[in-house]
Parts: sequence; C-alpha cells; structure tokens
Amino acid sequence: MVITTAHPLLAALAAELPPDRLTTDPAGTARYAADRSGFQPAGAPLAVAHPASADETAAVLRHAYALRVPVVPRGAGTGLSGGAVAGPDSLVLDLSRMNRVLRLSPEDQLAVVEPGVVTADLDRAAAAHGLRYAPDPASAAISTIGGNIATNAGGLRCAKYGVTREAVLGLEAVLADGTRLRTGRATVKGVTGYDLTALLTGSEGTLAVITAATVRLRPVPAETGTLAAFFDTFADAAAAATALTAAGVEPALAELLDGSVLAALDAHQGGGLRERGGALLIVQCDGTGAGADTARAARLLAGHGAARVETAGDAAGAEALLAARRLALPALERTGRPLIEDVAVPRSRLAAAVREIERISAAHGVPVHTLAHAADGNLHPILVTDPDLPEIPERVWRAADEIFTAALRLGGTLTGEHGVGLLKRRWLARELGPENLALQRRVKDAFDPRHLLNPGKAL
Amino acid sequence: MVITTAHPLLAALAAELPPDRLTTDPAGTARYAADRSGFQPAGAPLAVAHPASADETAAVLRHAYALRVPVVPRGAGTGLSGGAVAGPDSLVLDLSRMNRVLRLSPEDQLAVVEPGVVTADLDRAAAAHGLRYAPDPASAAISTIGGNIATNAGGLRCAKYGVTREAVLGLEAVLADGTRLRTGRATVKGVTGYDLTALLTGSEGTLAVITAATVRLRPVPAETGTLAAFFDTFADAAAAATALTAAGVEPALAELLDGSVLAALDAHQGGGLRERGGALLIVQCDGTGAGADTARAARLLAGHGAARVETAGDAAGAEALLAARRLALPALERTGRPLIEDVAVPRSRLAAAVREIERISAAHGVPVHTLAHAADGNLHPILVTDPDLPEIPERVWRAADEIFTAALRLGGTLTGEHGVGLLKRRWLARELGPENLALQRRVKDAFDPRHLLNPGKAL
Ligand SMILES: Cc1cc2nc3c(=O)[nH]c(=O)nc-3n(C[C@H](O)[C@H](O)[C@H](O)COP(=O)(O)OP(=O)(O)OC[C@H]3O[C@@H](n4cnc5c(N)ncnc54)[C@H](O)[C@@H]3O)c2cc1C
Ligand SMILES: Cc1cc2nc3c(=O)[nH]c(=O)nc-3n(C[C@H](O)[C@H](O)[C@H](O)COP(=O)(O)OP(=O)(O)OC[C@H]3O[C@@H](n4cnc5c(N)ncnc54)[C@H](O)[C@@H]3O)c2cc1C
Repeated sequence: MVITTAHPLLAALAAELPPDRLTTDPAGTARYAADRSGFQPAGAPLAVAHPASADETAAVLRHAYALRVPVVPRGAGTGLSGGAVAGPDSLVLDLSRMNRVLRLSPEDQLAVVEPGVVTADLDRAAAAHGLRYAPDPASAAISTIGGNIATNAGGLRCAKYGVTREAVLGLEAVLADGTRLRTGRATVKGVTGYDLTALLTGSEGTLAVITAATVRLRPVPAETGTLAAFFDTFADAAAAATALTAAGVEPALAELLDGSVLAALDAHQGGGLRERGGALLIVQCDGTGAGADTARAARLLAGHGAARVETAGDAAGAEALLAARRLALPALERTGRPLIEDVAVPRSRLAAAVREIERISAAHGVPVHTLAHAADGNLHPILVTDPDLPEIPERVWRAADEIFTAALRLGGTLTGEHGVGLLKRRWLARELGPENLALQRRVKDAFDPRHLLNPGKAL
Repeated sequence: MVITTAHPLLAALAAELPPDRLTTDPAGTARYAADRSGFQPAGAPLAVAHPASADETAAVLRHAYALRVPVVPRGAGTGLSGGAVAGPDSLVLDLSRMNRVLRLSPEDQLAVVEPGVVTADLDRAAAAHGLRYAPDPASAAISTIGGNIATNAGGLRCAKYGVTREAVLGLEAVLADGTRLRTGRATVKGVTGYDLTALLTGSEGTLAVITAATVRLRPVPAETGTLAAFFDTFADAAAAATALTAAGVEPALAELLDGSVLAALDAHQGGGLRERGGALLIVQCDGTGAGADTARAARLLAGHGAARVETAGDAAGAEALLAARRLALPALERTGRPLIEDVAVPRSRLAAAVREIERISAAHGVPVHTLAHAADGNLHPILVTDPDLPEIPERVWRAADEIFTAALRLGGTLTGEHGVGLLKRRWLARELGPENLALQRRVKDAFDPRHLLNPGKAL
C-alpha cells in the first residue's frame, strides 16, 4: 500500500494511526466510492480510514474537522439510495473493522455491539441463547448493524416486531468534531432527556458516527407457521393482504411478489412459481398459537380470492418459501439493471398503489417488478433498465417520479426503509413541507455546524 | 369572568380570541398552577389560554413569542414530575378543549386525534372496531393523549406492545414562534428525514406544542389469560419475574406489588391480599395461545418460589386482579402524602434494586412502598410522608437521592416513564453526561431559541 501524504489530512492520520488503518491508493479507494444504489460519483474518495476502535474513530473525525474535510461513514455499502456514496475530496470512514459483539446478556435480552457487526452474525450469536435480533432486513447476511441503525432499516419481520428503531436502546457516537457521547440506556424503558437515540437512528450518517449500540434481543418464538397463497393478479393479492390486517391477523411477515418476479425466479432457480399464480403472498405467523393463526390466515385468504394456498409442513418447507423472497433481487438483477424503489402507503391503499404502479409502468414502457412488505404497506417497485446504457434513462426517472407522486397522493411516503440518501433528495421537500425541512436543517446545524458529516445526503 | 387586560399579552389575546378562551381571574388560574407531583409553585400563572383549534394555538404562541412570555403546555395535569407546573409570569396553554377524535380508520388501524382526547376515550372509540390503543398508562382514565406523547408515557402493556413512542406515527405541532408543521406520516413505516416525531415524543412541552397526532391502533387480542402469584418476599417475586423473562415468556403485563401496598389495599377496599403473601405478581398474557402461555407462566412461577398462584377464571376475575393494581395509588394516598419515584433498571437487576430500596427505606426511616412494571424493570418506589408537613422533609429527599444513585449504579435510569419535569432536573447531568447534555441544549435552541416553551423543565 502506498501512503500518499500529499493531503495534510493524510499526513495527520498517517502520523496518528497504525499503517493498516488507511487506504490511499486509487485502486483501493475506488472500491469505496459507490454503494448498491448503482450511483457512480465523479471520482474516487481522497482516502479510506479503517478505525479499529471508537478512540481511533474520534481521532479521524477530529483531524477531518480541523481541516474541514467531509467524511462519509460507511458500513458494508449495501445501501440502495446512495447514502454511502463518496465523491472526490471526501474521506470514507469505514466502520467494518469494528465488528465485535462486546456483550450479550441473555438475562436482560440485550447485546452491546460495535457498528461493523454483520446483522446475521448478531442474530446467530443471539440464537445460541434462544434469542434473536428481531429486525430482519433482506440484506442481513451482508449489511452491518451500524448501517442498519443509520438507515433505520426495516425487515421482513417488522410488521409485528418493529423496525430497527424499536430494537435500539442506546448508542455510543462521535460528533463531527470528535466529541464522544452516549445516548439512551440499557433498560427497555427510559425518558431522561430528549430521545437522541431515535434521532440518530435513520440519520444516514449526517448527525454523528455510531461506534457502539445496545440492542434489544427477543426470544425465538416457540412455534411458527408459514403459508404461500397464489392469486390471479397482484391487485387481488394486495387486497387480500389488506383483508388479513383488517381481520386482526398480525403476521410476523407478509411478503408479496408479483407475477414478473415469480417468472424471474423461475428463470433463475428453475421452479414452477409463475404457473401456480400471477402473484404470491407469503405469510408467517409466530408465537404460541402460530399454527392456529396460520390456519386462520389460510381460510381468510381462500375466502378473499386466493386461487391456491399451500401451508409449509415444517421448517424446511417454510425456509423454501422464504428463499423465494430472498432470491427475488438476485433473480431480477439477471434481467437488467434494477432501480429499486421503496414507497410506503397506508395499508388499506396497497391495492390502489399496485394499480398505479402497473399503470405507470405501461404508460412509460418501463418494466416494473414489485415486491412488497404487505403488512406494512411498504412496496419495492423495481424498475429494470438496460445494463449496457451508461446512465439510467430519463423515462425511467419519469416513471419513478410518478410512482413517488402516486405514493404521496395516497397518503404515503417516498421511502419506507432504504432512506433518502442521494437519490431521493429531489422529492424530499414535497413530502416534508418547508417548515419541517427548515427545522431538520437546524437540527443538522446543532449536531454538525460545519456540515462535514456526509454532506449532500438525506437532507 | 373578569378579563384583566393589564398585561399586553392578555390584551392581545382578548382581542384575537373568543372570550371563553381565556382565564385570568386568580381563583381560576390558581387551579392550573400545579400537577399531580405535589409541587406547588410560588404563585399562580399570569393567565390560562384554552384554544379550541390548532389555529388558535398558533395565535396564542405567536403573541407570547412576540412579547417573550413563557408558555407552559398542559393536558390534564396528571403528570407526576412537575412538567405542567406553571409559575407566575407564565401563560398556561391548556389543550384539553381540543378533544376530538378527528378520524379513526379500522382498515389502516390508526386514528388522528386532537391532543386533549382522554386516553381511555380513544381506547373506547377503537374498541367499537375491535381495536385498542395499546399504551395503557395507569392514568388512562384521566390523562390526555397530548400529555402521554409529551411524556412518552409507559403503561401496563408496554413490555409487549411498546411505550407511547411506538404508537405515534405522526404529529402536527406548533413551534414557540407560532410556526405550524407536520412530522412523520400515516404509514406504519417511513424514513424520510430525521425522526422528529420520536424527538417530540417525550420532550415534555419544551420543543413544540402538539396539536394533533396520528396514532397506531392494534387488534384486541382474541384470548387473554391472567394470574396472580403470591410470594413470601418482594425480592423473591422480583427474581421470579426476571426468571419469566429469561425463560422467554413475553407477558402483556407483569405488575409487582410489595407487601405494604397489599396492606394499604386491604385497608382501602377490605380485601385479604396481605394474608395471601408478602408480595404479589400479576401476569397477563394475550393473543392466540394466551391460555397456554399463562399456564406455562404459572408453572414457572410455582417453580421459582411462588407460595400460591391463582389463575383468573374469566374476564371478571382478571379485572378484579388488575383492579388491585389500579387502586394501589389511591390506597397509598390515604396513608400519607406520596412522592412517587420512577426508576428503571435492566430486567435482571430488579431483585437487586428491590433490596437496595428496602435498605434505603430502613436507613432513613422513610416508609417506601414499591410497585413495579416487572417485565420492563421499571420500579415505582413511593415515599410516603406526613401530609401535615408544609414541605417534603429533607430526609425523604435524601432517601430519594440514594434510590436514584442506586438505579444509575445498577445500569438504570432516573425515570422510566414519568419524565424529568421539574423534580428530577438535579440528577439529569449525572445520567446523561456533559456531552449529551450540551447536545440536548443545542437541540432545544434549534426548536426554541428564546427558551419560551416550558422553561426550566426537562433539561
Ligand atoms: C439484497 C439487498 C436487500 C436489502 N434489503 C433491505 C431490507 O429488507 N430492508 C432495508 O431497510 N434495507 C434493505 N437493503 C438496503 C441496505 O442493506 C440497508 O440500508 C442496510 O441497513 C445498509 O447497511 P450497510 O452496513 O451496508 O450500510 P451502508 O450502505 O454502508 O451505509 C448506509 C448509510 O448508513 C450510514 N452509516 C453506515 N454505518 C454508519 C455508522 N456506523 N455511523 C453512522 N452512519 C453510518 C452511511 O453513511 C449511509 O448513509 C437491502 C440491500 C440489498 C443489497
Ligand atoms: C394515578 C396515576 C397513575 C399514573 N400512571 C402512569 C403510568 O402508568 N405511566 C405513565 O407514564 N405515567 C403515569 N402517570 C403520570 C401521568 O398520568 C402521565 O405523565 C400522563 O402522560 C400525563 O398526561 P396529562 O395529559 O395529564 O399531561 P400533563 O400532566 O398536563 O403534562 C405533562 C407534560 O406534558 C406536556 N404537555 C401536555 N400536553 C402537551 C401538548 N399537547 N403539547 C406539548 N406538551 C404537552 C406538559 O407541558 C408537561 O410537561 C400517572 C399519574 C397518576 C396520577
């Protein structure tokens, strides 16, 4: 590795940190320029710092602050909205080496983790004690807890168990100027002071860098039931999912896949999903009585137009059904370059949103494949474009724009879980309104008056 | 009513609002000086405004801002930490007239309510659709939703269903200068912008005045099981409650009452609770399979030292058990003047906290009666003093101080759900640390640069 000490920041960091904590060669830094959004900045970042502790993180921030160098915090770079994209002149702060589970208390059902812990690794550590980390982003195997917290990640189980925010009890963080602080607590309840823990959760690296988190764990449910319901059309499936909610069923997860996703999965893994229906709703109930709840859900779905309902006989069968959901994105990636959207609507408007998306897709001639976390009203319309084009074509952006507009018109939001990042900033003011946006800017100033933390993101 | 227009603010408000929106006579304003904390300020507030709409609320704030008059927002005044206490020279902003449920959507399982809606009234409106408002503060029959949100109230069911924060999706609020804004959304998920909804929740009227809230409703569970377990000592009961959590039982509520509370209840209502044991743990499980869960909890408690376990045969039996919990505070009020504390500790430290409280009570000769939300680790030590004394004696404050110190030493917090208000400000810095506190002050400045909203509270 060549240490370029041309920039005063690099000289300062090289003097303070062990040599393996800095990447400065262009081939190395280029790998930290983009995330999974597909957005490519104009050049590579100045350098990448890989601190191994909160002290080192604070040291990096202190130097960057003094020299007014913008800093882009980064977990695993699996974000889908460009939150970890780093342009030239910025320093990437890679937290992935801070990947220890510092404490796991089965009695208190909590863990204290460094930010670079991979989500699935925490879940595995918890499983050894009959516990689990309830938020379950589809990226759990590749994303970090720090990234999950910074984006307030949702997940398959969040209809019943809440999003990341509900699992975070306390944080350790470093401000832009290197000040270290703690927020929150190790108790499940507490109201001393403003809820800075919740404020940092979802702040996309723009307010502070998270260096440790106290997270809540929950018992692995004693019982689980899983079913797959096939419908003729996606709108039918969406309406049935709404009917489940209205009937008071609280599934642990309810995942909806449209016919084109089923076809892509068949092409990818050779199954026969598409021939079983034009849309698939996967429902899982858990807890004592999950078998009865699943049977009730099956009856309700059959009564609401399901052409076919299959109940998983055992854990392996359930895993097979869920694997279809987890493989959906890789399968779609083989059909072109995906632009993954993330709108959410009030749950009763799910079918209306699906109809809007289908209309917009047809009007612009842009193929849109849709996955949805149905019990949350969170839809992922995936706009697929030709991978050989240098940029996403304008008509794809026009279709995306109309989808956002439709979601807002239906009383919904631009982003259910992926965050605003770089890619959704254009639409931000429309959702928040000018007064809210002005207040958000003042909050940003209170944390980061020099605007050095992840500038140009989220706000 | 005599309108005193001596103060320019009163003249301005009298000119803008209908006459029944202002109370200025001393007998009338005196009733708004205190809350249920028992703290009495030095005099009555300047006046009380009773706006009937968000527009009127904004008008009141605009005038107060221009004339730099401090404003104390107030719901029902049931707070226990002095958050709604209003001294001379301040204007009380009474939100209790804004008490309409504006919208209730059974399909989306949400309601839009004005802040003055009484908690139990919302729950009743939801019940007509098979839904409920899950947070269940023991004060539900007398407190307002606005006050619940401003204090992030906990409740009996919050171990399983979360505190008020988890039920609030979006807010309408007015800033100190009269600016109106919306935060959050009507969807169950969404991450556009910083989470100002969570930040306002628990901010004790110091950041903005809440004029409407979109809250989540949940299905009333199909099944409920309730049991009462009597133990020889309170520490035994606390240890058994911790064992329940460790065994993966997730009760909807787990309420713990010590022997002196049982004796006070017997004196109050003539029951035979104290003779059945030295401490009572009431556990309720709900949802499909609640019967099985309750039976399992009963077995676990019997195996962890319960001298006697009674299972409620039906809803009336369950209500009778819970009534004991709800009547505990009125029963204690008959034994003296209660100072109600609210510490929380990690759940595994519950028995240790109980032992500390007993030691402190004996050392200072101050009777302490303890109630606990056991599944949350939230304890309410109630220090009872002679009602004829003009002030709370110094040794009672010393005992309280030691209880706070013990809670912090056990990894806990000063206040699990009641808020800091006026009475806990002395201990705030000890829990938060100087960096966090400085940041909280900057957040306050971002919302309320003139420090006119509820000055001297929470921070
Ligand atoms: C296949 C696939 C499936 C996905 N499924 C889901 C899903 O179900 N739900 C969901 O919500 N998302 C999902 N995502 C998106 C992504 O995985 C999540 O946003 C994830 O939380 C990002 O974690 P990360 O470690 O990769 O963060 P990064 O992408 O590295 O960063 C994301 C943001 O967090 C900030 N950040 C990272 N670490 C820190 C830190 N320690 N301190 C401060 N800021 C920090 C960054 O600056 C950036 O703004 C999916 C992505 C893929 C590729
Ligand atoms: C018998 C009894 C039992 C209780 N049980 C519980 C319990 O189980 N859990 C619990 O958490 N608390 C409990 N409490 C405390 C109290 O009821 C709660 O704090 C409740 O949330 C206060 O609501 P309120 O409408 O009375 O608010 P108030 O006491 O009027 O005000 C409380 C705080 O909120 C602010 N505020 C009120 N309305 C607004 C608004 N619209 N906008 C901005 N700020 C506002 C005030 O300025 C003040 O700081 C109990 C109290 C009693 C007397």
